[in-house]
Amino acid sequence: MDLCELGRRAKDASYALAKATTEQKNAALLAIADALDANAEAIIAENCIDLEEGQRSGLSDALLDRMSLQKRLPGIAEDVRKVASLPDPVGKTFDQRTLENGLQVCRRRTPIGVLGVIYEARPNVTVDVIALSLKSGNAAFLRGGKEIMRSNVALVKVIRQALGDAGLGEIIPADAIQYIESTDRRYIDEMLRLHQYIDMIIPRGGAALHQHCRENSTIPVITGGLGICHVYVDETANLEKMLAVVHNAKTQRPSVCNSLDTLLVHSSRAAEVLPRVVDHLGASGVSFRAEPRALEIVGGKTGVQPAGDDDFDTEWMALILGLKVVDSLDEALEHIRQHSTQHSDAIMTEDQAHADRFVEEVDSAAVFVNASTRFNDGGALGLGAEIAVSTQKLHARGPMALEELTTYKWVVIGTGQVRQ
Amino acid sequence: MDLCELGRRAKDASYALAKATTEQKNAALLAIADALDANAEAIIAENCIDLEEGQRSGLSDALLDRMSLQKRLPGIAEDVRKVASLPDPVGKTFDQRTLENGLQVCRRRTPIGVLGVIYEARPNVTVDVIALSLKSGNAAFLRGGKEIMRSNVALVKVIRQALGDAGLGEIIPADAIQYIESTDRRYIDEMLRLHQYIDMIIPRGGAALHQHCRENSTIPVITGGLGICHVYVDETANLEKMLAVVHNAKTQRPSVCNSLDTLLVHSSRAAEVLPRVVDHLGASGVSFRAEPRALEIVGGKTGVQPAGDDDFDTEWMALILGLKVVDSLDEALEHIRQHSTQHSDAIMTEDQAHADRFVEEVDSAAVFVNASTRFNDGGALGLGAEIAVSTQKLHARGPMALEELTTYKWVVIGTGQVRQ
Repeated sequence: MDLCELGRRAKDASYALAKATTEQKNAALLAIADALDANAEAIIAENCIDLEEGQRSGLSDALLDRMSLQKRLPGIAEDVRKVASLPDPVGKTFDQRTLENGLQVCRRRTPIGVLGVIYEARPNVTVDVIALSLKSGNAAFLRGGKEIMRSNVALVKVIRQALGDAGLGEIIPADAIQYIESTDRRYIDEMLRLHQYIDMIIPRGGAALHQHCRENSTIPVITGGLGICHVYVDETANLEKMLAVVHNAKTQRPSVCNSLDTLLVHSSRAAEVLPRVVDHLGASGVSFRAEPRALEIVGGKTGVQPAGDDDFDTEWMALILGLKVVDSLDEALEHIRQHSTQHSDAIMTEDQAHADRFVEEVDSAAVFVNASTRFNDGGALGLGAEIAVSTQKLHARGPMALEELTTYKWVVIGTGQVRQ
Repeated sequence: MDLCELGRRAKDASYALAKATTEQKNAALLAIADALDANAEAIIAENCIDLEEGQRSGLSDALLDRMSLQKRLPGIAEDVRKVASLPDPVGKTFDQRTLENGLQVCRRRTPIGVLGVIYEARPNVTVDVIALSLKSGNAAFLRGGKEIMRSNVALVKVIRQALGDAGLGEIIPADAIQYIESTDRRYIDEMLRLHQYIDMIIPRGGAALHQHCRENSTIPVITGGLGICHVYVDETANLEKMLAVVHNAKTQRPSVCNSLDTLLVHSSRAAEVLPRVVDHLGASGVSFRAEPRALEIVGGKTGVQPAGDDDFDTEWMALILGLKVVDSLDEALEHIRQHSTQHSDAIMTEDQAHADRFVEEVDSAAVFVNASTRFNDGGALGLGAEIAVSTQKLHARGPMALEELTTYKWVVIGTGQVRQ
């Protein structure tokens, strides 16, 4: 396989795609959604082979469940139709003004070009990424997990075919979608150096994948994915709100990056708050890792054990919660600075000055006051979709949706102006 | 020298600096400007030693001129005062809205943290970068050219001292400014891997430096600096406007990246336009590299020679201009796609449809209609300053000023909301 050739094709296709109108892009998306429905049987047949092989090689039930398309395919097609209904960011202008010399200046949103996405076992990511890329006028260059390659190849084949069948081939060429049909990991490293053709790398997976991309890519990488998230219960926190938020942040979907990992409680409320938290979350199957002062209060309860050395630097991805008592907002801020991965952190407080300080001083992608960290998500924050959550500071931070998949150009219109 | 230690200090200082008010930051900038004026003699004494050593080691007069602070220092101090007068981007909110569940959501601009800047021989960059970094709430981690190290060390010493003297030490610590006091190039590579402490790398120098940073950095890099810039003279171009713009774009400051490199002329106008261009620019000392069709028209004139194989892929940085005849707007667009470095490209036309197509299809940081490419500059486009011109597509494109030195955080204010 010649990755350069795939890259060249994607880049060429991206030039055509950048000129596509919103209507043409939406027509392509609807054609893709219809083709996914129409070809469900063939796609699911390939998915079943992936699942059988996964079972034979001993993949966990949880992973096999994430890989399965059987029940998910209609929802995936529906998500593509939803992307078609979202506003198109391309062509929007901002910072428009006329300079003293008469030059008319603005910045205009344009597609980025070719998006490189490296992901793991969920085949729905294949379709999500393609839909968001096409809508934002970008070509997509994909490398999915080896466990799910047959499913991904089947999905990509149906989608590329749909573009041809919809008669959009010249405007939205099938080559706008490239998939690395190999499980050889050396292609990941080759892909990370294709800066001539790929404009941005989005890794979707664990910390090791993000680190590998950051260290080996010559293409700008959007890193994220790792979330050690905190809720700080301040002196004035409302108990009922706090219990609801903490329960939601920890238990609603414990395997994702915006779920709660550590609860910090002000010492003046610890004796009241900690037992209630342990009882309420314990009833949902949560167990606890408590530092000494917290252990003094709830050490006798079921599911509570002493926190180990690394427990406050662990993203649990499971029904486990770290517990710590702090003596002040400052101590909470310092703990968060030391241990947060700058993803999602929250304060529960009725004190406006403390809320303001927390928002000001916590340097995370999303900062919450009296709300669950689970809201750090493109859909939940009103962006309509999401390709990734960035925890780095350049380009985009937090949930990335369509606008974050664009760049801009400066457009300067004159009547013969020259620089003095 | 322990770069990790310098990085840690810069990062710690950046937390304090991020909380500084606009007034405090402006006070620091004014104190710096005053200190530069007050310590001019000592700074210039060190600068003279750099210049003498440069002369002995045979540096060019042009380079020695760029290195000299003698005449420039008052202007440099004045530029710091100008940065103080610019609006502070930090704390500005955007995309503010209330979701259906009552959550109040916005994005709020925050400093990036620590900016790493690697630059070459101009000592004014040292002060520019420090001023823009402090105003945008960022710490600065600098590595300047070896030819000018004494001057830079003197400038940094005065600036750090000024922060202490202004009594701003706790809010804007001197450690917010770190300078690598060594000419050993291995520190560049060490710096490029300090992702624990440095949030963004801005190289300022030639193509080789940019490539080195892109290939060796584990920190996001803003690349740019290389500008192969085009003006396309369309069928309907106004001759006088065209001559003025082309003359300005080529001759006003030929050694910078937004100066003109290649003139493309529509064949219907070539016999009229090319001789006028050669006469008008030739009188200012410009020589020409003409492809065969252009050579047929102006080959007999002084200063015109045949274009070589790489001439249309060369950033001239000198009074040389490539000349080429094309038969259509499409051919011009194709030439630009093949040869432009996506920095600054212009069309001269009175045809609105052609202007629109050029703006739409030329994928460069700045696209001009009837105006000089020299306007691709932070000051000239109304940003009030500039730290670099980016030709990459992530984070910022084109001139980067204060806002481009910030990121944002999502701020979500609730009343106990949980995710469904």
